[in-house]
Amino acid sequence: MSITRPMGFRAAAATAGIKPSGKPDLALIVCEPAVPEALRGHGAPIEPRAASAAVFTRNAVVGAPVTIGRRWREAYGTGHARPLRAALINAGCSNAATGEPGEQDARTTMHLAALHLGISPDEVMPSSTGVIGHRLPVGKIEAALPGLVKALARGHDADDAAARAIMTTDLVPKQAHREIELHRHAVHIGAIAKGSGMIAPRLDSASDTGGSPHGTMLAFITTDACVNAACLQLALEHACRESFNCISVDAHPSCSDTVLLMASGAAPVGPIHRDDPEFHGFRAALTALCQDIATKIVRDGEGATRLFRIEVRGAKSNEDAASMARAVVDSPLVKCAIHGRDPNWGRIVTAAGNAGIAFDPLDASLSIGGVEVYSAGVPTTVGKGDARLAAAMNADPVICELTIGTGPGHAWMLGCDLSADYVRINADYTT
Amino acid sequence: MSITRPMGFRAAAATAGIKPSGKPDLALIVCEPAVPEALRGHGAPIEPRAASAAVFTRNAVVGAPVTIGRRWREAYGTGHARPLRAALINAGCSNAATGEPGEQDARTTMHLAALHLGISPDEVMPSSTGVIGHRLPVGKIEAALPGLVKALARGHDADDAAARAIMTTDLVPKQAHREIELHRHAVHIGAIAKGSGMIAPRLDSASDTGGSPHGTMLAFITTDACVNAACLQLALEHACRESFNCISVDAHPSCSDTVLLMASGAAPVGPIHRDDPEFHGFRAALTALCQDIATKIVRDGEGATRLFRIEVRGAKSNEDAASMARAVVDSPLVKCAIHGRDPNWGRIVTAAGNAGIAFDPLDASLSIGGVEVYSAGVPTTVGKGDARLAAAMNADPVICELTIGTGPGHAWMLGCDLSADYVRINADYTT
Repeated sequence: MSITRPMGFRAAAATAGIKPSGKPDLALIVCEPAVPEALRGHGAPIEPRAASAAVFTRNAVVGAPVTIGRRWREAYGTGHARPLRAALINAGCSNAATGEPGEQDARTTMHLAALHLGISPDEVMPSSTGVIGHRLPVGKIEAALPGLVKALARGHDADDAAARAIMTTDLVPKQAHREIELHRHAVHIGAIAKGSGMIAPRLDSASDTGGSPHGTMLAFITTDACVNAACLQLALEHACRESFNCISVDAHPSCSDTVLLMASGAAPVGPIHRDDPEFHGFRAALTALCQDIATKIVRDGEGATRLFRIEVRGAKSNEDAASMARAVVDSPLVKCAIHGRDPNWGRIVTAAGNAGIAFDPLDASLSIGGVEVYSAGVPTTVGKGDARLAAAMNADPVICELTIGTGPGHAWMLGCDLSADYVRINADYTT
Repeated sequence: MSITRPMGFRAAAATAGIKPSGKPDLALIVCEPAVPEALRGHGAPIEPRAASAAVFTRNAVVGAPVTIGRRWREAYGTGHARPLRAALINAGCSNAATGEPGEQDARTTMHLAALHLGISPDEVMPSSTGVIGHRLPVGKIEAALPGLVKALARGHDADDAAARAIMTTDLVPKQAHREIELHRHAVHIGAIAKGSGMIAPRLDSASDTGGSPHGTMLAFITTDACVNAACLQLALEHACRESFNCISVDAHPSCSDTVLLMASGAAPVGPIHRDDPEFHGFRAALTALCQDIATKIVRDGEGATRLFRIEVRGAKSNEDAASMARAVVDSPLVKCAIHGRDPNWGRIVTAAGNAGIAFDPLDASLSIGGVEVYSAGVPTTVGKGDARLAAAMNADPVICELTIGTGPGHAWMLGCDLSADYVRINADYTT
């Protein structure tokens, strides 16, 4: 079980006919906030226990659901919107680059879902993935909704069905689950996600005003923890920075990247605030869950046969280190070398040198799988025939560690190789 | 003829045994500055007529020849170095990521060449391309030098031999030539170049202090024009900005990108200064020559089967437009769509949206081959079955025109498709 493992959640999937393949393409996750039994009847007023948080792509061109989601988040952050009660997700059409008509289409589906669920339309978050520039087939979604709502359930089958319905070029459904203790009570966090191509997320934060964007991946996370809304957003942003923002399949960030976190508050602890020592435990568990899901996305990257991880240390700042790690993980030459198990480490060093970050090569060293190949600006004596280096290149993931100085900046990125299959998958995707 | 068509140049090639293939791998271009017959005997002192200019990669990790070249340029720009008399170029080993020993190796070859040519070592510019992280086989170059110098000649055979000796994964040698009139005298500009992979040049300028780098391509340009040294550098920087800096094969800038321009001053006109009306004619011809060579490099891009050109208009600045054009031309998803002749234009629009440049999609429009597919933020009625759109996707190059507002900023980039052959070529390059 994943997303319905936390108390207060049900999920379902349906086949609306959006995907040309005729596979399931519509999922619904419903949050039913509840005051836990243990907290009832004390006479004291009970704080609202449900809360939601979200992060979105920084692409200048976004899907209509992202526009709606950003607006919801802004209103929610200032107390002008309610927490989310439902996520309505479709695959097969991203409803992106569709302008005002596309936004109207998304709003129509929010209204329809709200009607069936007996909630308000602004408690429904739409989410779409698939081909860009096509209008959302609202009629098909409308026709599928009654059955979808009727199918809402808890359990493995519901989770698995939802995880499969949101897939596009994914080969496997992606789910994760963590159980932690908060104030000696078991609390659950669950997630489903999709993503295989157009993956290089650079998710924003609620306080962003724009900036350099990058990755469609969708992740829907549920928890029965009761966490203060502002803290929930902070925890999610931290978790995304340390997971989804550190992966890249193909350097092309999507217009639809979204991570949504709904907390039902159904566990009999909390609300947890930022100064609560348990907050760090919650945040760490959420981060580990997101890293688990992020790794699954790269593992299922289009055409990917092997992963590699680049760590950059000694930069002036974490941001500098991240820019260099991203330049390495996105280099097609590095990705091809990983594919060919070829210890062509010059590509790694020069890719890092292209990030626009100044450093002295004489301070730079590179190890692959613990085998130093480049030290203080010169090649070591390890040649490509070295057995340890060959073993390092055969590892999965291949671990590359680049040190470029003595600064405190550190970052990592997880990427995958570039195979001929990537070309085959993407040379003819809309047809 | 190309580089020896201008008066005052000879060229030659040799097989030093640096390339494992055993093909020619060493080239020499020699500039023999001369005072033209027509200017002699007037009694007035004759200004120095030879001049040189150079631009290099902005990569933080560079080949030893680039370090040497940058230093020469700085000294030359302040009157502390002489114009170049020779370029000694090898393929098969880039002498990059080799630290101080690599620089010493390069200096040794400069000294050896200078000895054979009877000039000063600091009049020799070394240039290297090939595998990164290997020491330069100085002994092989030393052994080949006497024959190389003896073979120096003018004519088609010498030009062709030099163009072939500098190739790495290139399938075809690259040469270009322009003849122009300056003050009613015929002046020639010639070039040889190499480049196929690791191509996304972001060449610097003499006044750069670093910055965002990108692309190994080497180009060696000769002319018999007599142009003031500062003007020659300005003309070269302008030409590179409008040519090599607008191409990308694989988004990975090299550590060795170099464009060298040697002017012999042997034509009986000039020196041309910046306020000379003929300067613009010279600059335009140089730019056209560089665009010719740049296009040949993309056409011979590793695995490339078709080219595409993206024009971005209406941005706030040319820099903003260039960032967006580069994001499009480097997106593996866009490149695969071009390969598959798939009018999946959403990838183009979202790639542009990833450049970190804010714009309103409702101001954005996209045409492919003159067929508008996206207009003011919404798809047009042109579907992928449209015959004109199919014809536009079958064109070579495919022409994509993106307008994102009403600003004055404009830029273009020329790229190539991503094919399974690219993966095959690069998954096993060092072996």
